[in-house]
Amino acid sequence: MAKHSVIFQPAGNRGNIQEGKTIMEAARKLGVGLQSTCGGHQTCGKCKVKVLDQHGYYKSKKGQEKVSPPTEKEKGLLGEDAISEGYRLACATQVLGALTVEVPPETQVSHEVISKTAIQKAVTLKPAVRKLYLEVPKPQLGHSQGDWERVSGVLKEHFALKDLTIDHEALAALPKALRSGNWKVTLTLFMEKRVIRIESGLAEKAFGLALDVGTTTLAGYLCDLPTGEVVATEARSNPQISYGEDVISRITRTIRNQEGLNELRSCLFDSLNELVQAVSQEANIAGEDIIDATIVGNTAMHHIFLNLDPQHLGSSPFTPVLQSPMDINARDFGLSICPGANVHALPVEAGFVGADNVAVVIAEEPYNQDDMMLVIDVGTNGELVLGNRKKLVSASCATGPAFEGAHIKFGMRAARGAIESIKIDPDSREVRFKVVGDDRWSDQAPAVKATGICGSAIIDATAEMLHAGIINRRGAFIKNISNPRMLYNKKEAEFVIAWADETDLGRDITVCQNDIRSMQLGKGALLSGANLLMRQLDIENVDKVILAGSFGLHIDRQNALDMGLFPDVDAEAVYSTGNAAGEGARLALVNTDKRREAADIARRIEYMELSLESDFQTEFVRAMIFPAPQKVGEK
Amino acid sequence: MAKHSVIFQPAGNRGNIQEGKTIMEAARKLGVGLQSTCGGHQTCGKCKVKVLDQHGYYKSKKGQEKVSPPTEKEKGLLGEDAISEGYRLACATQVLGALTVEVPPETQVSHEVISKTAIQKAVTLKPAVRKLYLEVPKPQLGHSQGDWERVSGVLKEHFALKDLTIDHEALAALPKALRSGNWKVTLTLFMEKRVIRIESGLAEKAFGLALDVGTTTLAGYLCDLPTGEVVATEARSNPQISYGEDVISRITRTIRNQEGLNELRSCLFDSLNELVQAVSQEANIAGEDIIDATIVGNTAMHHIFLNLDPQHLGSSPFTPVLQSPMDINARDFGLSICPGANVHALPVEAGFVGADNVAVVIAEEPYNQDDMMLVIDVGTNGELVLGNRKKLVSASCATGPAFEGAHIKFGMRAARGAIESIKIDPDSREVRFKVVGDDRWSDQAPAVKATGICGSAIIDATAEMLHAGIINRRGAFIKNISNPRMLYNKKEAEFVIAWADETDLGRDITVCQNDIRSMQLGKGALLSGANLLMRQLDIENVDKVILAGSFGLHIDRQNALDMGLFPDVDAEAVYSTGNAAGEGARLALVNTDKRREAADIARRIEYMELSLESDFQTEFVRAMIFPAPQKVGEK
Repeated sequence: MAKHSVIFQPAGNRGNIQEGKTIMEAARKLGVGLQSTCGGHQTCGKCKVKVLDQHGYYKSKKGQEKVSPPTEKEKGLLGEDAISEGYRLACATQVLGALTVEVPPETQVSHEVISKTAIQKAVTLKPAVRKLYLEVPKPQLGHSQGDWERVSGVLKEHFALKDLTIDHEALAALPKALRSGNWKVTLTLFMEKRVIRIESGLAEKAFGLALDVGTTTLAGYLCDLPTGEVVATEARSNPQISYGEDVISRITRTIRNQEGLNELRSCLFDSLNELVQAVSQEANIAGEDIIDATIVGNTAMHHIFLNLDPQHLGSSPFTPVLQSPMDINARDFGLSICPGANVHALPVEAGFVGADNVAVVIAEEPYNQDDMMLVIDVGTNGELVLGNRKKLVSASCATGPAFEGAHIKFGMRAARGAIESIKIDPDSREVRFKVVGDDRWSDQAPAVKATGICGSAIIDATAEMLHAGIINRRGAFIKNISNPRMLYNKKEAEFVIAWADETDLGRDITVCQNDIRSMQLGKGALLSGANLLMRQLDIENVDKVILAGSFGLHIDRQNALDMGLFPDVDAEAVYSTGNAAGEGARLALVNTDKRREAADIARRIEYMELSLESDFQTEFVRAMIFPAPQKVGEK
Repeated sequence: MAKHSVIFQPAGNRGNIQEGKTIMEAARKLGVGLQSTCGGHQTCGKCKVKVLDQHGYYKSKKGQEKVSPPTEKEKGLLGEDAISEGYRLACATQVLGALTVEVPPETQVSHEVISKTAIQKAVTLKPAVRKLYLEVPKPQLGHSQGDWERVSGVLKEHFALKDLTIDHEALAALPKALRSGNWKVTLTLFMEKRVIRIESGLAEKAFGLALDVGTTTLAGYLCDLPTGEVVATEARSNPQISYGEDVISRITRTIRNQEGLNELRSCLFDSLNELVQAVSQEANIAGEDIIDATIVGNTAMHHIFLNLDPQHLGSSPFTPVLQSPMDINARDFGLSICPGANVHALPVEAGFVGADNVAVVIAEEPYNQDDMMLVIDVGTNGELVLGNRKKLVSASCATGPAFEGAHIKFGMRAARGAIESIKIDPDSREVRFKVVGDDRWSDQAPAVKATGICGSAIIDATAEMLHAGIINRRGAFIKNISNPRMLYNKKEAEFVIAWADETDLGRDITVCQNDIRSMQLGKGALLSGANLLMRQLDIENVDKVILAGSFGLHIDRQNALDMGLFPDVDAEAVYSTGNAAGEGARLALVNTDKRREAADIARRIEYMELSLESDFQTEFVRAMIFPAPQKVGEK
């Protein structure tokens, strides 16, 4: 039989196709991926393409004669208008002559869409799972095939898929699904090789869950996999907080108590399952409709999630059990999504540089840029990644919890009533502040009274006190300042930020000498870390600073620069990314290339153990000193 | 550096190897598989080879100079005697010149041994799992590798294994195993791609379990995987018997009762786990030391084991859920062996031709023979496979349970007291019989009294009554025989086998007209099935008849032939194989090639639905007639 030249655009794949073959068959033969849920039954309408003549024109009548006429099903699914513009279903349209096929973006197997999440990044969709709708021939006496073999036959014939395995629970659901759906079923296929779910009839819902397991907060992002959109977001406190606020106290729990790890896991999974329920309700789906998941977290949270003993993370040489990505089964861990669903845990880099950091890196992609980028993720520890497409280095530095408001006299988390911004007039040293929960500054009679100071405001206070000459570059309070806010107590000096009547405490909220020392220790750790990484890459300046996490969302960039929190750079070159770890988890959820990218990059990033540098202490002490005041004035 | 010619015998692989490389490295490069548990640490001694000169001679001094001198570890493991004969460890011996390496059978990766089980077949060993002993470099500050990545590094370097995955429970056990074993661990590797178990230090125990899940009996064979030997065997009743003796009543249970399948599974797994415990105790190992398993059974048992709804097996078109082999995780099914162990369920052929039949076929291998072989597996149903290397056909025939002693007036299972053999003098029609539990015939004053008749004795009775002219070829009792044993009741005629005083029942044990009819129905089904299969293959005679299962072990071959149970053949060409299904399960356990063979053959065997043959009824009625008496006399 005659063969005809067929060209697929925009990919450009071309070849000779036997007359009578469908455009779908031609695409398969020429290696062009077309969307299709129904596998060629003219049911789903996803394989829509535009048929042009061999020169790429539509208007020529010739192109239209070179394919079979539209079927009734096509007319129903596409509409007469689209058909008159040359749109057809690839599975229904036979090649009768030379032609060009234009594949619209939505029909291409991986395509870019603009996500509607906060960060609004363009996302390539290439999920690990897809759904396939099958019409299976009914069994007849004398044709002794089993149910699964009937399904396998259709998968081979209509989807060119073979040697698939099937999850045992999915298989157990097969006979009923086939018979109740009149031999029509929808399969969920993982990584083109394993069937993980069976549903009766046509069932197109396909959702994935990106989980960010933080020390303090658990966040879940429910994504509609075919569009990549986040359709529901839920966050809640990590219930492990009752076993200790920071990572080290939880690790200690697992060491001191034989059942410690089980306790930590059990309350974590209870909470995660509540979260699953909440996002499912919000999107009006069942938990089982979540057919894929990713998870990120710092190394300790990652280990606890995966039931890996975190105790060796707590002492030198800080060895994780696992760095590589890990695929586990939702069923094995009691995560109440589709039982056969895969849960992909992103890789960790090193001891304290966790999967959350890897997620930030794949969200920010410094490895695809020429600019020298410094990614700072501050929590109880500071994690730093520095570099560009040529090389990336990372380090962990013991910033201590001061940036989170801990170990600060009036420190607190960024909850309602926390002072979050502070301004000090450099001449009068008069103070204005703003608290979480009220938009007005303290001089505008705000309704919410102050109850403490959160991390971002401590940075403000430090920079402003430096600027107003209340502390010097070495962090010491200047002596003999005559100002009602300046108190020189026996124990230590302090500076009043909020007068007692501006607070809910009935006493003044101050910043004391010890608070400034804590800030210096934190900043010294962070800056010396960044400096040592810069020396490692032999560079003098960074081009861009990315502040990841909620810490970055609240701090005043100029104040952070003025107190020398990180290497000097233009304030415009400092970016806050919000929950970039969650964003990285979402990217890995909707695009498996991102999972590979994460695995590659986690292996490639060179981890630097700062404490092994001979001049680590010298660098640290030097970095504790605040920048010169004249420099502050210049800005 | 210089390269030298190295030849491996008996495989014959050859190539040029760089000076200084070990014989182990040379073997790997040239694709020769050598045993090794320790991965080249001169610890396990398994890679023993004999070094000869390039012409294959040992005595020449030249050969000995062409390798590095023996190490102290080699001397310790091999002994001076072996070393003086040229034996060396491949991992310790460097190539310094051209040489020949003789690989003894025990060092070859797959090799034949004679098994010590009842059937005494030569078995090729190629288990799905192997153990690897690793010495892992300790972590140091500044080398930020995780535990698993350290292990992966050694696997890649010493065993040329990469991209391995690891079971999550095995991974969870890793940090403790490494530290308690001073960074020496033993891994269990499944199919060269997944680590399923981690043990501290050197742990060579490797056992597998072959399970035969019969309707009546569960049998377990514990095999030492490195030798293929069965080290413990246990059998017990299938506890599902309380839900019905035959397959159909159990299927009915799952249809009538929503929890039916769960009940059947739950009691089955309780019993299987008892069996696991029993074989483990017998071999003095822990259940977790069982690191691989296979399972066979008829289609209904296979389905129930795998949690697959068996209800559609019970009605036309008798569609199984699954025919293909299935690999499941021991953990997922609560089988109390190593939790990450794989359990391989052998494939089924068609509705009633199950994985037990496939196991019989891979044990008997008709597909490797020129002889036309008929394999008969009789239980409640009869399963037949006929053919040779050219083609195999199978059928299932409704023999009914008569051959198991059911639906027979005094029928019983082959338990103590059951009459298992019967002789009738053709002239006097005097009867002698033997019961299970006593070696003496009834005329020798046996101690055990008769309580009923089991399947094999019904066949004896039928053949002997035919021979003695008590019944005719159509199965009717001959009228007016004058003999005290011959009773002509109103209802039906019967023949006394055991007088009341020879029994425990206090009344005569007889064979009645109805019993003979039941035998005729069973034999008719079996023989017509065999005849139709022979017609399908266009053959007049079979060369060999294999009776599988315990049924075959007890019947008198000549009597079976005399009553025309299967096509006429020399009595010497009739073989009983005992539990060939269990044997097939064991073969698949110790040799993964057998698993592939089973999958291939299950697909290749052509299943014939006898009831669809137009002359099925005619054939069946014809086959109910017994062979001509003169023929009986001739034998």
